[in-house]
Amino acid sequence: MSIIAPITHHFGPYNPYCRSNFDALHALVQDDLVGVNNTIVSKMQSPIELIPQIAGHIITSGGKRLRPMLTLASAGLVGYEGNRHIDLAACVEFIHTATLLHDDVVDKSNLRRGQDTANSVWGNQASVLVGDFLFSRAFQIMVADGSLKVLKILSDASAVIAEGEVHQIITKNDIETAEDVYFQIIENKTAVLFAAAARIGAIIAERPESEERALEAFGRNLGVAFQLTDDVLDYSDEQLVCGDDFRDGKITLPVILAYAAGNDEERAFWRRTIGDLRQNEDDLIHAQTLMLQHGTLSKTLKKARDYANAAHRNLNLFAPTAHRIAMNEVIDFCIDRAY
Amino acid sequence: MSIIAPITHHFGPYNPYCRSNFDALHALVQDDLVGVNNTIVSKMQSPIELIPQIAGHIITSGGKRLRPMLTLASAGLVGYEGNRHIDLAACVEFIHTATLLHDDVVDKSNLRRGQDTANSVWGNQASVLVGDFLFSRAFQIMVADGSLKVLKILSDASAVIAEGEVHQIITKNDIETAEDVYFQIIENKTAVLFAAAARIGAIIAERPESEERALEAFGRNLGVAFQLTDDVLDYSDEQLVCGDDFRDGKITLPVILAYAAGNDEERAFWRRTIGDLRQNEDDLIHAQTLMLQHGTLSKTLKKARDYANAAHRNLNLFAPTAHRIAMNEVIDFCIDRAY
Repeated sequence: MSIIAPITHHFGPYNPYCRSNFDALHALVQDDLVGVNNTIVSKMQSPIELIPQIAGHIITSGGKRLRPMLTLASAGLVGYEGNRHIDLAACVEFIHTATLLHDDVVDKSNLRRGQDTANSVWGNQASVLVGDFLFSRAFQIMVADGSLKVLKILSDASAVIAEGEVHQIITKNDIETAEDVYFQIIENKTAVLFAAAARIGAIIAERPESEERALEAFGRNLGVAFQLTDDVLDYSDEQLVCGDDFRDGKITLPVILAYAAGNDEERAFWRRTIGDLRQNEDDLIHAQTLMLQHGTLSKTLKKARDYANAAHRNLNLFAPTAHRIAMNEVIDFCIDRAY
Repeated sequence: MSIIAPITHHFGPYNPYCRSNFDALHALVQDDLVGVNNTIVSKMQSPIELIPQIAGHIITSGGKRLRPMLTLASAGLVGYEGNRHIDLAACVEFIHTATLLHDDVVDKSNLRRGQDTANSVWGNQASVLVGDFLFSRAFQIMVADGSLKVLKILSDASAVIAEGEVHQIITKNDIETAEDVYFQIIENKTAVLFAAAARIGAIIAERPESEERALEAFGRNLGVAFQLTDDVLDYSDEQLVCGDDFRDGKITLPVILAYAAGNDEERAFWRRTIGDLRQNEDDLIHAQTLMLQHGTLSKTLKKARDYANAAHRNLNLFAPTAHRIAMNEVIDFCIDRAY
């Protein structure tokens, strides 16, 4: 199975190496990833059969396992030789999956990764509770692992993710949201888990704090770059799922920049469509046109590139091993998927 | 503020001492409870103001703090002399509050403790995310406390609670649900947190495992007795909130027993109202009448009394100190509130 659907090119020249960028790391951690998948499948079991059914629906629906792969990659990067990274990578994926299940409720979205959401199939109630189950399971696995430091990092991350998600709800439909508030939100709701995932590798290998900090910063910068790119992709007309953010009135950087650059008439358009959620059939295309006119998608991708470059610099602390080179390529992949 | 609304008497003789049963323990742990409330208020803070606003709405809405009081009581019972029980009792309340917030989504209920639910005021999204925040906070507090054993007990409990809640969804509207399935559900969704809350007192005091087990069993039996009584109260016509379970088609013991004892016509009534959720205005009163005819409310209370008696026996391991006597009284209070 392909780890990710083929990427179409809309905002730049076609890059035939896009997919291989991710595959390099994939090849390096392949055996570990099999272990992670086995842990995921065995730990999502429950006598209540609906739980593995719903959890399996979302966990096996073609996600890239990007976050757990960061744990595997960072463990490999620092020469970790045990097997704790397998279970802890599964924890990271469980926490991520729990937030996806709870997001389904949050966003009233009916599609995720091109499939029906668990929510649309089984209802809000089951999505919330299976999310709770996976979240609890993640903590059970961490407890069995036995590191209070890892428990601290992932419980801290979980609280911050919830704060970021609530913050996002508050700013929804608020067309006046400032750019720095947006960056704070995506750092909290997305980048903090990337940071934690990467940092765990250094912790279990008992590496010096400088390496922990470098991997934490790498993950954080990568996470921001990833989210910025995601927010661009939602306005890319060739994506399978496109326009969700617009229809929800979610405030993302392409919108913030287009509103800032718009004339009175354009601002009235953004206030009506995003602020008041009064949308006509052609509005998404008009929004995309305005974004192309003002270059806000490419400006957003430029920001993503800045964060990606910072993530590259964070990795400079480490020798350019196969793992580091693969991680460098993953950074580029996270941006290039928008081209 | 009264810790609980005055209880009316419907199923038995008026007992003027009902409320004082709970007040005895309340008086004993009063100072600790102030500490717990302070911890709760300080730990629910966040730069995202909507979080303490929603959390405060449910946390300060007149709940009895029964579960955290079990931690305080058991710590007192075994002579614990530190202050870890304060923060850990707050964890127990945070986990309970998170499940309430997620239940609001689950049950589509519009009233809880006679107030608007967080859900009806702020929507599903915020209820879910603030629940996640409180749940994460609970784990952060446990990590700061530093006991892997406590972390194990409460992460295990959280997973089992989610299983119990999902199991309850599955049996909803299933009028053929067996009695033992019902008992399994209420043990998981309710009694396991009571058990964990009580057990923590013995753990932090480093008492022998026999005492841990006794307090665990005490909490579990009390939790089942408490839930059975709750399920009776939902059919008590003098309660502030009554009939929620019926309107939701929730399967509780009073319904299971009435269906088992019913003739063909009565069974058709239960299938229509609970199974198919086709309900007329007078159906709740007819359901209550059938329950009185077959004595299913008093049979359910008899079961609650059996579990309460088991909880009393669990406490016999301990000397009859003021704490034990107060805990004995709390057991009776949990049942007597239905009279």
